[in-house]
Order: sequence, then structure tokens, then C-alpha cells
Amino acid sequence: MSASENTTAWRAPTAPESRNYPYNCWWVAGFSDEVSREMLGRWLLDTPVLLYRKEDGTAVAMENRCPHRGAPLSLGCLKGDAVQCGYHGFSFAADGTCIDVPSMKKPPTSASVRSFPVIEQKPFVWIYLGDPAVLNNVPPPPVLDWSQDDDFALVHGRMDIAANYMLLKENVLDLTHFGYVHAKTFKITDWVDPPSFSTDGDTTTFHQSFRHSPLPPLFADALGLPLGMPYNRENYGSFLSPALQEGAVDFCDPATGDITGRFRVSHATTPIDPVSMHYFWLLGRDHGNSPEQMAELEKMTEIGFAEDEEMIEAIQAVTSRDPRGSNAPEISVKTDTAGVQARRIVQRWMAKET
Amino acid sequence: MSASENTTAWRAPTAPESRNYPYNCWWVAGFSDEVSREMLGRWLLDTPVLLYRKEDGTAVAMENRCPHRGAPLSLGCLKGDAVQCGYHGFSFAADGTCIDVPSMKKPPTSASVRSFPVIEQKPFVWIYLGDPAVLNNVPPPPVLDWSQDDDFALVHGRMDIAANYMLLKENVLDLTHFGYVHAKTFKITDWVDPPSFSTDGDTTTFHQSFRHSPLPPLFADALGLPLGMPYNRENYGSFLSPALQEGAVDFCDPATGDITGRFRVSHATTPIDPVSMHYFWLLGRDHGNSPEQMAELEKMTEIGFAEDEEMIEAIQAVTSRDPRGSNAPEISVKTDTAGVQARRIVQRWMAKET
Amino acid sequence: MSASENTTAWRAPTAPESRNYPYNCWWVAGFSDEVSREMLGRWLLDTPVLLYRKEDGTAVAMENRCPHRGAPLSLGCLKGDAVQCGYHGFSFAADGTCIDVPSMKKPPTSASVRSFPVIEQKPFVWIYLGDPAVLNNVPPPPVLDWSQDDDFALVHGRMDIAANYMLLKENVLDLTHFGYVHAKTFKITDWVDPPSFSTDGDTTTFHQSFRHSPLPPLFADALGLPLGMPYNRENYGSFLSPALQEGAVDFCDPATGDITGRFRVSHATTPIDPVSMHYFWLLGRDHGNSPEQMAELEKMTEIGFAEDEEMIEAIQAVTSRDPRGSNAPEISVKTDTAGVQARRIVQRWMAKET
Repeated sequence: MSASENTTAWRAPTAPESRNYPYNCWWVAGFSDEVSREMLGRWLLDTPVLLYRKEDGTAVAMENRCPHRGAPLSLGCLKGDAVQCGYHGFSFAADGTCIDVPSMKKPPTSASVRSFPVIEQKPFVWIYLGDPAVLNNVPPPPVLDWSQDDDFALVHGRMDIAANYMLLKENVLDLTHFGYVHAKTFKITDWVDPPSFSTDGDTTTFHQSFRHSPLPPLFADALGLPLGMPYNRENYGSFLSPALQEGAVDFCDPATGDITGRFRVSHATTPIDPVSMHYFWLLGRDHGNSPEQMAELEKMTEIGFAEDEEMIEAIQAVTSRDPRGSNAPEISVKTDTAGVQARRIVQRWMAKET
Repeated sequence: MSASENTTAWRAPTAPESRNYPYNCWWVAGFSDEVSREMLGRWLLDTPVLLYRKEDGTAVAMENRCPHRGAPLSLGCLKGDAVQCGYHGFSFAADGTCIDVPSMKKPPTSASVRSFPVIEQKPFVWIYLGDPAVLNNVPPPPVLDWSQDDDFALVHGRMDIAANYMLLKENVLDLTHFGYVHAKTFKITDWVDPPSFSTDGDTTTFHQSFRHSPLPPLFADALGLPLGMPYNRENYGSFLSPALQEGAVDFCDPATGDITGRFRVSHATTPIDPVSMHYFWLLGRDHGNSPEQMAELEKMTEIGFAEDEEMIEAIQAVTSRDPRGSNAPEISVKTDTAGVQARRIVQRWMAKET
Repeated sequence: MSASENTTAWRAPTAPESRNYPYNCWWVAGFSDEVSREMLGRWLLDTPVLLYRKEDGTAVAMENRCPHRGAPLSLGCLKGDAVQCGYHGFSFAADGTCIDVPSMKKPPTSASVRSFPVIEQKPFVWIYLGDPAVLNNVPPPPVLDWSQDDDFALVHGRMDIAANYMLLKENVLDLTHFGYVHAKTFKITDWVDPPSFSTDGDTTTFHQSFRHSPLPPLFADALGLPLGMPYNRENYGSFLSPALQEGAVDFCDPATGDITGRFRVSHATTPIDPVSMHYFWLLGRDHGNSPEQMAELEKMTEIGFAEDEEMIEAIQAVTSRDPRGSNAPEISVKTDTAGVQARRIVQRWMAKET
């Protein structure tokens, strides 16, 4: 038995110059309800990943490439908490240790497969694919308080998008696109002026106040108020990490200033590779949140976010096909402030890796 | 607001070593009847191009990539003569000047998109994608007199071919392929001997005289003469520019020497990229040109040119897949004289750019 | 007429660093029953190859790229023993000599196309695509005695697999995969212990003895013995050349030690390119070989080998997509001994070429 390289230090599979995402960062591997006792193979950050649950329900992630002859372990099967490769039957415990090679009395200790740290914070299963040696210095996955708040009802969905993940990030950091991309779906057409911006460390935030502004149907319906009624809204959003973006709308009675409803959204994007991503979206509302109303919200969101998908996939297609790539001239205006900050923050995350 | 690169000198998007087409040349962007008040996005010479007409009917071409965040402008809409991007609503006048950014009181002057010079000579819309600084020194689009001659009826069509554009050029410069590729369609099987050749500057011409040669059905039918009747034909063709090839047949009564009919064809090829092209063909005839006869000609041409397409796509597929690429041994014979001259002329066009 | 390069020394079309197969080796071009008077175009070792038979039945192979303008000759037609290109009618004798250019009185001698040495040993047509100068030093195609033995009935089939050819070689050199990949088809589940191994020059062999081992249905049925009957089997296989692998099972009566049946299989793999192959399999049996029984064997083999195809295509897909390529850590165990030897033998074949 011989082993090659399996004791070498960790190295990112993809060189920094060909990507714009850090490895030493927690990313969303999937929704909790996607990970089960069925084997789930998924590419995340150019890495083949196997996801499953142990018999006690704990989520597990390991490299989806058998260290013996490279078979995707997801083609194998679970034997209790262990994974048995479908090619030659090598078995691996949930921590990646090789526990059985059918032709050997004792499995070779060096035949382990890399396992990945996982943190489950429902509805997300977070994964760490970076350098194990620096894990302790990496910020933990951001917590979305509202997602754990019983006052909120939640809906979520996944889209696999053929575009670099930052195109989605920049999309949700410049909401002036609502009046064009979503004019016929979300019908929020008053996002016109640049919001205010602030940056705190590696978090960047936009904030837009709407005062006595007519309520679009999406909001009016949920609040049980007449369409177009002048109302106050505080709309703000933050780039929390390369993996997660959060958005919020607080509805305030213009007469009393009381918050009468809270709407939340988070956008988790995990690069599959430099030109595609998994997009995990989560919406929450503490009002107008009967099952029927949330089902309606889910449906509208799927339609609206498909409009974003179409747009950013078109941008990626142009960028990929244009020989100038991303080097074509680009103009930024004030509404891009948060997006431009986000790019810089990502660069800082990446700079720490080299 | 910041601008990057938008004042730098023009540079071809694709390096000369990976292409065989000049930028400083007029190319056909489309047929006149393809350009309308609908947005038309098209890749020409590795460049994303948007084509449309102003309200007064003038054809307009600009870069189909918003300078803000790269969205294809063809996903937006026309507002009068201006283009509004479908992502964040940036608007551009027909000359590319940014005239509106919804979140700004005054649009940033640097946010303009490149517009391209256009010349419409029906049935073609010509475009110039090269260096603006040298446009005045570039030969104008060749004029096809017969296409403006009322004696001629015309038919035209477009094929998008997965092959380098020169494969089509060489195809129409060596008509000995008729006896093999088109034996069952055009049935012109007497193109056997090498024609005579002449080169005048950057134009190269072949000329073949057929004396007392039986008329193929395509020609006999149009002239109203019996099939196989001995007749005289002068068949010649010229490489007029990298963009345009013209072919001609003059039919002469062997008894009198009078020209009794003129048949014309032009082949405009515009590279999409190094391995694909738009092929715009145009046929004209000053005889046998009732609507029914021209419809018949159009139909036969579509079938026959699809035979060329199959052949040159097969050649491109071999060239692209063979690790030797275009470096495999190649033999040229006398009938290739015009094609070889055309390659040299293209090289001269390209040499002027560096 | 001009010729470029056609007198230069032979050079492999693909650089050694991007492939793992030698050119100076006999490979299987096809089954005898695939080569006929119809033109057959096929890519072998990155080389476009045309296969056909002369009127006397002799198999012929030549480059499937006309030296004139690169058309695949397989789009042309046969004129007696010669090939006529479908583009401009250039004709080539079976040895590749140009014998006709329609526009010339005398064909240019330099216009020949490369022809390839062919050896037909039914059911295989072997081809040599390497350096003509060293052909005499290259081992001839291995002979499979049993394939010429009248006691044996044969079945064969071809699969085109999207994987490097060595993945199939390693598959058949480590039969411990039977218990996992083929558990439900071949049902040979006693291939658990490592076999013995021996290497003789550039041949490597595994050997496994099964004593008083229950007969799987595939074997029991053919021998006319009850399922699960304890019986002796000698199972061995050899890597004969980069092109050919042979496997064998001798069935022995445990009481007498007599061989009561012989089962043979050969696996010929010919790279199409670095990531795909033609797989030509051949099975033979000197017992239980009525037409019905052989048809049953053929059917089961197609199903079982499709299981291998699925697995090695999945491995290739991971390897191709993983930025680490084939540089990910890899563990080998004792059952891989023959496979690892085979890799070394291939490296020795390749080292001889440089």
C-alpha cells in the first residue's frame, strides 16, 4: 500500500487568480431539508462534496471522491453512519477515516477521505471547505435572529444559476433594479434614489427610508392595508459575509411611528465554480403569514427571482464570451456603493489566504 | 461615480494570432429586413452588438453590453430613439451617450456606450467595428451595382455556420466543388478546368469561359432554353473585401455573342468568432425572374448552400478537433489560386492593424 | 502547386504530457464486421481515420482529412479501391497516393494522404498510427489463441466510453469491484482476497484460485451444474499491451482436477482522445455455447459492462472537473498491484517514443 500527498498541507483546489471567492469562510452547503439519509453529491467551491445524515440526524460532509480510485462516493451507499464506495467497497466513517477495505484484514490508516466541518443552523447546513489550520480564526456563520424567531413564518428555495456568485450579491445590493427587472412582478417601483451607505469592518450596509410612500401590493396585502396607502418603510440590507446577504423592511405606521410589520430576506450564495452558483434564498415575515399567504409569497418570489436569474445569467454569458472578459470598461454610480464595497470586502477575505 | 478605461484608445477585443479577420473593415451586420424597432442582439467579430432602427428608420448599432453592469442592452427596450437597459434603467441615445441614470439628477458623461458607424446599402446594413481613429482610411463597403438595378430581381438568405469565415470564402473561389458537393442539386458539372486568375490590388478574380457548353437546368430554365442546349457562359467572381465576395455569370448567344441574361450572386460573411460566421447570401437575375421563378431559385439555393455548410462545418470540426489544428500538411493546386490570393489579401488587411 | 510539411518526419499529433497512450503500438481500429465497403470515419489516438475495405476484402486505413482542403474523406465515396473526396474530387489509392485531381492532367505526387498499416486478425482490425520509421521494432498485435479455436463460440460488442482508456484497464485488473459494481448482474461476489501477481517484461498478470467455491449462476448455467455447487476455478488475466487485456477462467472438477470448461474475455481499448475511448470486448466459451446461450451471455455482458461504463465515466467526470485533475491524493492497495504495474508498463512504452 502506498499513499501520495495525503499528509501535505491543505491547498485551495483553484488558484486565486481564477476565482473571486475565499475558501477560509463558512458557506451554505444546502438547506437542512436537502440533507438526509440519501447520498447527496454537490460541487461547492470547485470541490466535490458528499452530504448525508448520520443515524442520529447529524449532518455530515466529506469529499465526494474516493481516495482509492476517485469514484464519487455518492454512487455508493450508507452502512449505518459510514459510507461504502460503490466501486471496490472501501468504507469510511463519518469523520473520513477508512474503516474497511474488503481485500484487507486491516484498513490502511492513510486511506482516509477528507471530511469537512459542518454547522447546522436551520434552515441552513453550513460547510467549511478551507484550510483546517486556520478554522479557529474564521468568523462563524452569521446568525439570522429572525429565522429562529417564532413570530416569523419562513419560506425558502434554491436556484442553481449559471453565473458568478457576486453577480447575485451585487444584484441584491442595488435595489434600483426593482423598477426594471421586477416592474411586473414585485411592483416595487419607488426604489429610485440612492440609499445611504455605511461600512463596519467587513460588513457593508445600505439603508433607504420611504416616508408616506404608497404601499406596493406585495406589502399592502401582507399588512392588510389598502393598496397604495401612504406608509413608512425602512429598507436596509447588509453584506454579512461572502456567503450571506441579509435584507430587511420594517413597516411603520406614519401616524404613530410604531413598527407594524417586519419583512426579512436572506440570500446565501455558494459558488459551484467561477461561473455558477447555488442560490439559497430565505424569506420571513411576522405578519400576514398564514400558510396560504406564505405560499403566495413563495410563488411570487420564485417568479421574481427567476427574473434576476435571467438577467445575471445573460451578464455572465456576455462576460464569458467577450474576449475582454471582465476587463471591459465599467461605470459605477452612487447606487453601486454597497456592491463596490462588497467586492473590496471579498478581496480582503481572499488576501488573508495568501 | 468612477470610470475605468473608458477613455483609452481602441483595441481589438481579440488578439491577431487567434483570428484571421481584420477589424478595420466594413462588415455586413445584417440584412435591412432584419433590423427593425425590435432589439436585435448579435455577436460580430467577437463583439456584442445591438442593432435597431430609430423612429425615422435609420439603422443604429451599439455595443450590446451596458457599461454599468454588463447587461445585454437587447434585454432592455426602446424609448423613442434611445435604449433603456433592462437591469437598472440606464438610458443611451442612439450615438451611445448616456442620457439618463434613474438614481442621478444628471447622467455621468463617461457612462456612454460605444456606438458603431453604420452604412445601409440595401439589402445590407454594414457595420464598422474597428479603430475609430482610422475609419477614414478604410475602404467603404463595396457596392453591388446589380443589387440596385431594377432589371434584377433579388432573393437573399442568412445561414449561421459553425466554421471560420474563410472556409466559405475559399469555397466560392474554387467552383470545381460544384461537380461533387452540388452534383445532385445545382447540376453544374462542367466546372472542371482551372479558370484564369487576376489580382488587382486587394481584389482577386477568377474567370471561366464556357463555349458551346450544354446548359444545366438551373440556367436553361431561367433563360427559357432547352436543357442541355450548347450555349456560351462567362463565369467570373471576385474577392472584393474580407467581407464580400461577388460572382457572376453572363449568358451569351453563341450565334450572336449578345448577352441574353445575367446572373449574380454575392456572399457576405461576417465572423461571429474564429470558428463561426453569419453568411448572408444574395442572388440576382435579370431574366426568368417572375416571383415564382425567384421563389424556386431561393428554394434551390437554400438546399444547395446547405450542402456547402455541411462540408465546411465538417472541415472546421476536423480542424478544431485535430491537435495539429490548421498546421496539418496542406496541398494547393491551380484551382486554389484565387483562394490562396484571398488569404494573402486578408493578411495584408490585418498587417495594417498592427 | 505547393506543398507544406508533407515530407517532414512523423510527429505524434498530441504532446506526451497531455496523454497517457503510446503511438508506437498496435491498437484495435474496429471489429472486422464494422469495416466494409461503406466509408467509416473514426477518431483514434487524436487522429482522424478512414476505414474501408478494398474490393478484394482487404481492410484499409488512411487519414480521414483530405490533404487538399481538409475535408473528411469519409464524406466522399469509393471508386473501386480508391477514395474520392466529396469536396473537390481528389482521389487517393488505397496506399494514400493521389491518383486524380479533376482539374489537372497529372495529379501532384506530393498530394498523397497518409495511410496506416493494418493487420486483420479476426475479429479485430488492428491499426498502427505511430512513427513509420520504427514500426519494425514495435511488438505485433497480441494473438488470442482461443479466438481462433473452433471449440470456442464468441460474442463481442463495442462501447464508446467518455473516460480515459486506463480507467477501463484498471477496472479489469482489479476484479474486487465485482462484488459492488456487478453484485446484481454477474453475481460473482467471492472476488474478495487479493490475487497473486506476476510481471514478465511488459506483461503483468493476476491469478486467483477459487477452491470448492460455490458457482455463481453465470458459470453454473453454462457448465450445466447446479447453482452454488462448490467447484474449482482458476481466474487469471493479463495486461498484454496498452491496447489489449485478456482474462480467463478455467473451471476444474474438484474431484478429478480436470478442466471442464474454459471462459475467456478480452478487453481492447483504443483512446479516441485523452478523455474518451472505444471499448471493444470479446467473450469466448468452449462449453454452454449454443447460440441461445451465447445470446444470453451477450445480453448479460452488455448490461454488466454498462455498469462499469457508468462508474468510470463518473470517475472521469470528477477528474476532469476537479481543478486538481489527476493530482488529488490517491491510495493504492494490494489489489491494485496489476493496475499500478500496467501504468508503469504504459510509461515504459511512452518513454521509448521520446
